Amino acid sequence: MSNRKLRMGMIGGGKDAFIGAIHRIAANMDGQIELVCGALSMHADVAQESGKMLFLAPDRIYNTYDEMFKAEAQKPADERMDFVTIVTPNFAHFAPAMQALENGFNVVVEKPVTFTLEEAQQLKAKVEETGLMLLLTHTYAGYPMVKEAKQLVKSGALGKVRKIYVEYIQGWLSRLSEREGNAQASWRTDPTKSGKSGCMGDIGTHAAHLAEYISGLKITELNASLNIVVDGRMLDDDGAVLLRFEEGATGTLIASQVAAGEENALKIRVYGENGSLEWAQMEPNTLIVKWLDKPAEILRAGSGYTDRLSSYATHNCRTPGGHPEGYLEAFGNLYRNFALTLSAKIEGREPKAEWLDFPSIDDGIRGMAFINNVVASNQSNEKWTKYTI
Amino acid sequence: MSNRKLRMGMIGGGKDAFIGAIHRIAANMDGQIELVCGALSMHADVAQESGKMLFLAPDRIYNTYDEMFKAEAQKPADERMDFVTIVTPNFAHFAPAMQALENGFNVVVEKPVTFTLEEAQQLKAKVEETGLMLLLTHTYAGYPMVKEAKQLVKSGALGKVRKIYVEYIQGWLSRLSEREGNAQASWRTDPTKSGKSGCMGDIGTHAAHLAEYISGLKITELNASLNIVVDGRMLDDDGAVLLRFEEGATGTLIASQVAAGEENALKIRVYGENGSLEWAQMEPNTLIVKWLDKPAEILRAGSGYTDRLSSYATHNCRTPGGHPEGYLEAFGNLYRNFALTLSAKIEGREPKAEWLDFPSIDDGIRGMAFINNVVASNQSNEKWTKYTI
Amino acid sequence: MSNRKLRMGMIGGGKDAFIGAIHRIAANMDGQIELVCGALSMHADVAQESGKMLFLAPDRIYNTYDEMFKAEAQKPADERMDFVTIVTPNFAHFAPAMQALENGFNVVVEKPVTFTLEEAQQLKAKVEETGLMLLLTHTYAGYPMVKEAKQLVKSGALGKVRKIYVEYIQGWLSRLSEREGNAQASWRTDPTKSGKSGCMGDIGTHAAHLAEYISGLKITELNASLNIVVDGRMLDDDGAVLLRFEEGATGTLIASQVAAGEENALKIRVYGENGSLEWAQMEPNTLIVKWLDKPAEILRAGSGYTDRLSSYATHNCRTPGGHPEGYLEAFGNLYRNFALTLSAKIEGREPKAEWLDFPSIDDGIRGMAFINNVVASNQSNEKWTKYTI
Amino acid sequence: MSNRKLRMGMIGGGKDAFIGAIHRIAANMDGQIELVCGALSMHADVAQESGKMLFLAPDRIYNTYDEMFKAEAQKPADERMDFVTIVTPNFAHFAPAMQALENGFNVVVEKPVTFTLEEAQQLKAKVEETGLMLLLTHTYAGYPMVKEAKQLVKSGALGKVRKIYVEYIQGWLSRLSEREGNAQASWRTDPTKSGKSGCMGDIGTHAAHLAEYISGLKITELNASLNIVVDGRMLDDDGAVLLRFEEGATGTLIASQVAAGEENALKIRVYGENGSLEWAQMEPNTLIVKWLDKPAEILRAGSGYTDRLSSYATHNCRTPGGHPEGYLEAFGNLYRNFALTLSAKIEGREPKAEWLDFPSIDDGIRGMAFINNVVASNQSNEKWTKYTI
Repeated sequence: MSNRKLRMGMIGGGKDAFIGAIHRIAANMDGQIELVCGALSMHADVAQESGKMLFLAPDRIYNTYDEMFKAEAQKPADERMDFVTIVTPNFAHFAPAMQALENGFNVVVEKPVTFTLEEAQQLKAKVEETGLMLLLTHTYAGYPMVKEAKQLVKSGALGKVRKIYVEYIQGWLSRLSEREGNAQASWRTDPTKSGKSGCMGDIGTHAAHLAEYISGLKITELNASLNIVVDGRMLDDDGAVLLRFEEGATGTLIASQVAAGEENALKIRVYGENGSLEWAQMEPNTLIVKWLDKPAEILRAGSGYTDRLSSYATHNCRTPGGHPEGYLEAFGNLYRNFALTLSAKIEGREPKAEWLDFPSIDDGIRGMAFINNVVASNQSNEKWTKYTI
Repeated sequence: MSNRKLRMGMIGGGKDAFIGAIHRIAANMDGQIELVCGALSMHADVAQESGKMLFLAPDRIYNTYDEMFKAEAQKPADERMDFVTIVTPNFAHFAPAMQALENGFNVVVEKPVTFTLEEAQQLKAKVEETGLMLLLTHTYAGYPMVKEAKQLVKSGALGKVRKIYVEYIQGWLSRLSEREGNAQASWRTDPTKSGKSGCMGDIGTHAAHLAEYISGLKITELNASLNIVVDGRMLDDDGAVLLRFEEGATGTLIASQVAAGEENALKIRVYGENGSLEWAQMEPNTLIVKWLDKPAEILRAGSGYTDRLSSYATHNCRTPGGHPEGYLEAFGNLYRNFALTLSAKIEGREPKAEWLDFPSIDDGIRGMAFINNVVASNQSNEKWTKYTI
Repeated sequence: MSNRKLRMGMIGGGKDAFIGAIHRIAANMDGQIELVCGALSMHADVAQESGKMLFLAPDRIYNTYDEMFKAEAQKPADERMDFVTIVTPNFAHFAPAMQALENGFNVVVEKPVTFTLEEAQQLKAKVEETGLMLLLTHTYAGYPMVKEAKQLVKSGALGKVRKIYVEYIQGWLSRLSEREGNAQASWRTDPTKSGKSGCMGDIGTHAAHLAEYISGLKITELNASLNIVVDGRMLDDDGAVLLRFEEGATGTLIASQVAAGEENALKIRVYGENGSLEWAQMEPNTLIVKWLDKPAEILRAGSGYTDRLSSYATHNCRTPGGHPEGYLEAFGNLYRNFALTLSAKIEGREPKAEWLDFPSIDDGIRGMAFINNVVASNQSNEKWTKYTI
Repeated sequence: MSNRKLRMGMIGGGKDAFIGAIHRIAANMDGQIELVCGALSMHADVAQESGKMLFLAPDRIYNTYDEMFKAEAQKPADERMDFVTIVTPNFAHFAPAMQALENGFNVVVEKPVTFTLEEAQQLKAKVEETGLMLLLTHTYAGYPMVKEAKQLVKSGALGKVRKIYVEYIQGWLSRLSEREGNAQASWRTDPTKSGKSGCMGDIGTHAAHLAEYISGLKITELNASLNIVVDGRMLDDDGAVLLRFEEGATGTLIASQVAAGEENALKIRVYGENGSLEWAQMEPNTLIVKWLDKPAEILRAGSGYTDRLSSYATHNCRTPGGHPEGYLEAFGNLYRNFALTLSAKIEGREPKAEWLDFPSIDDGIRGMAFINNVVASNQSNEKWTKYTI
């Protein structure tokens, strides 16, 4: 039980921005966090109007994050924001994140964590130097049945992991939407804003994170092939990667944004010696566990057989079985665990293990390294590229 | 765009209460509402502790709703709560709802709206007299694809409605849990707290509401058979009803709380001359539309083909297709539409048609009448009982 | 291991007939039966042409069943047909079935077994008198996972049965097809050919059979409401029945042939004290078993965990898991079990218990009684009608 | 309408053999083919006993195929077998197939068609030289909705094909079953009997065939990685291949036989510019078609909207929608189309286009080339290997 709500500021996420609105819903949901200030847009008029729409106090609607950090840092401790959420395009993550940490603010940042791996490493150094907290919003790691999947692998019930298939398939870039006024498409396909990879940076990183998170195994080698399917596009909009993991497991990672008719089809299957698990983001409350020698089981979030579900799954549910929770709740779980941990830290309490299970800067570094390695492998004629950081 | 957040009070919903927590998440979600006060429990200590956990100002943690209404009514207009949410057991809905209205507060109330039909009718009179607003939380009417289903029927695409099958199947009362310390089970199976029906009052009313809401047809006759399946229980825990609707449609309503292994399986199918629709609460983002003469279609919440989805569906989505929204978002939609309408009213703006589409006192009266008629039919040896109010 | 193929004759089932062709596929499938003769149509030219298409010997293509029985009865034992399959419309089952038995031929007959209950009872007497075998083709009882469901209930694993929901929903009579030259629709909606019920006779009987077969419980009372939904139709094309079973179980049976967009949606759910099962004909290789206190299980036909599947399920599979078997194989199982038993009888071997598990005249009598009772209940204003034979 | 049944002989497929029994069911099903002779085992006693169980005439139960070809070739035309089915292990396909052709018999042969590509090419030359027919039993090409998928791509409705994902995942070799007396496992993992690849030869070839069959595009380059997952195994039991197709399409092929808990999970997805299709062998009567700009559609085998289904789909169905057909019917379709074509040829009639759509020697050559190329790519450090024949 916390003593007070945590105070959040936001950089980016002005009106019409997609992911900023999602972050606010996720942060609002559990009543543990209040948005107190923001530098919501590079454009002063948008920043002001957006702040007003969000009912911010007029003097805490800032026009730049620079201004925001300075002003907030000078506020008394019982008023000052506790953390800042950065929801700008990729190229604009690093500078405000560094400045936040330097000014004593904890950080929530969208993935990929930075524009380059080098920036991510500098950020890690700064996090360690300051002792502040950083949440990287790999949303899919917030789903209760993803937590369950991780714990199930960890328990050894499936036996040694042999195969990992992960795929993330979307269709929204099937046309050259970046030339048709789609703001999302525009920056995400622009190498100066998005980074050196499009599809793999945007969604391949989620898939890779999920595979490593659930299996507990790190990628050691990869064999990637990226494609620009839509003529005129500047970055990969599709690709596939053969994977080798620690301990001899192998797998595949498929990502596409030109798979016409697909929505947001992230799915993972992990096979061990004795059984396997399957989880699909679009039916997130179900974890199918198949066994070599007995009938498959359907594990359900929020279900009554709490002895069969790990504490990590139950901690991350808000409702009983059959009351579907979704993407926003998964996102909310990231915020909730971050907030529980941060409040505990502020108030000198010990955080629970379940609260600490949120993605942070190390996951960010894996993500940036994944992008680097995939791009390098794609450019190589060698079949296998060692995964390096 | 509203000028300010709406201020909410809450009656009931202290710590450990199930539905109160759900209401708060739903109200928090969109950042349009803030909880400012509460009379959260009949027990002063619980009320105080719960208020503290929710970060209420100490002077707005009340021990009784009586006290709350008095104190809040005296506050200045820019501080006073705008509406009160009543999440007590059924028998304790009516008194605070009446008192709220009498003191000038809008009302959000759990279903069934009151303990008896007579109370519901008095409440309706009071709503009309005061001109205040009432939201009845028939959650399932808040799902975007339920909205879509209603609009699809209304469009005439399916032709004249012939059949309606609705079922609501749970298993959580498969044992005599009310004697094993399950608080939810305890009051819901107690006729002095729940009303004259158990299963039909608790979940049959949801099913009946959904059927009438989507089809636009009212039940005119029914043939009900209720059961007490678990020995020692005082109210029906299971039942089935044959239905006749306006305009010649017929149907069935099945409800059970002793269907071992089921979670919260609310499902509806509506058949017209040319095609049909199917929606299941546990996969809520999908509406299956089957046609007599062409392939079935899968309509998806949040999808890109916005020309095929009604404005009622799109208005009630927060995310693009494939980012599953669930029960809490459906609940949030009730609050959001209520809040949008209330803010518009307060600020003298015209509400949109989509905002006005939330359940209110008339739905509450239908619910109470449904309970009365089902119980009467169950007691009768006549096959068909006319549905009366 | 049989010594020889069994020899089959057929009455009805000429070219363009639907169910005759299905019977032949089912009989052919396992190579244990050969079609040797037929009286395939009332029309001599159709009978002749159909026989030729089926490669029958010209002298065994008969123009009437009368002629066929006489001729076949005079053939030597090693040539004479062993059994006759009757696939004429309902009104023309009884006479050939009686004549077959009187001439010493075993019988396979489509359901409903006769036109009236009285005929069914006479047929039963004749079966008992002659000691010959009769197979009633309640196809759905031939599916391996239906066998599994029956054995699972019998094992007691689910506990005492409380609820049975069965539904059989089709859409093919959504229009007045009987006036549009649809031969199937024509006789099935004609009371002089089909019997006193349309939908309930045609598919309601399948649903009732499945419920009693799986649960092992007989219907004791019913509360039926039948409808003629399509104007101009002469028999019910839709209906619903509330059911009471032996040992206190209750249930519902829904049947419709005017549910636009539905194909052949037969589905059953059986709930016991500890768990439940769900089987749907359109995904027949899966039996979902849900438990009150542990995760649901997916039992699959042909799967490797043969210790978990009953011998009745495994006996009725031809392929390993994941090679879907369907309607024709289920139909083939009826023929196979009938043939295995008949061969054993002929050759003086003891049939296995699994072979004997095929529907016969007693099921036929239950079917005819079901029709009678449903029609009587529909005509009554009393809520409940005792199920009588 | 044929004049007579076709006469089939069989090589291999003695009692306890898996695939021989499947072939017989498939051939029997439609009553167009009769099994008249066989050389059913290398072991004379098994050959004799198996022939007896299948009710073969004693003088047509042969101990060797050599003997069978000689004896049958000398029979009069109205008695002699028309074609021979070869269901021996891979290494024993070529010799009997050549001998059959040389003796004037048409051939049905299991895939992979031969042991080496060179043999396949010789066989092709012999087929062309003799003008006889050969059916290669790529079963999955027999499913009606696979036919529909092919026609849908061909129609251009999906636009230019961009992506093809195909996967074939089984778990039955998760343990070293070949050392535990599993006869199937034993020869399929033995390079002297199975060929140079295990998993890719056994099931990868099916997946590759399906991809090329449906898309109409040939593989041009591949990047393969094969694994021996289970210690002690001699051939690959797992692998993944990145694919490049004609006309710029790319894709992935995943195959595994060590995916614990999987049955026979063959699935394909094909993405075009405007939409995509998805088909899974374990739910074979459904073809999901997703569109970029409108709701996804569910196309169903046997459905009433015959204007939307191609003649290739409807020709390959035996039952109306909702009466599931499965693996055996798909297999039966291969035999049926082969038999219809062969009868037409024998009787001097023109075969229909739909009948001619069965896999033959060219598919066999593609299959052998696929194996060669995958194995070559796996051994290479170059990322991409040109697909050569």
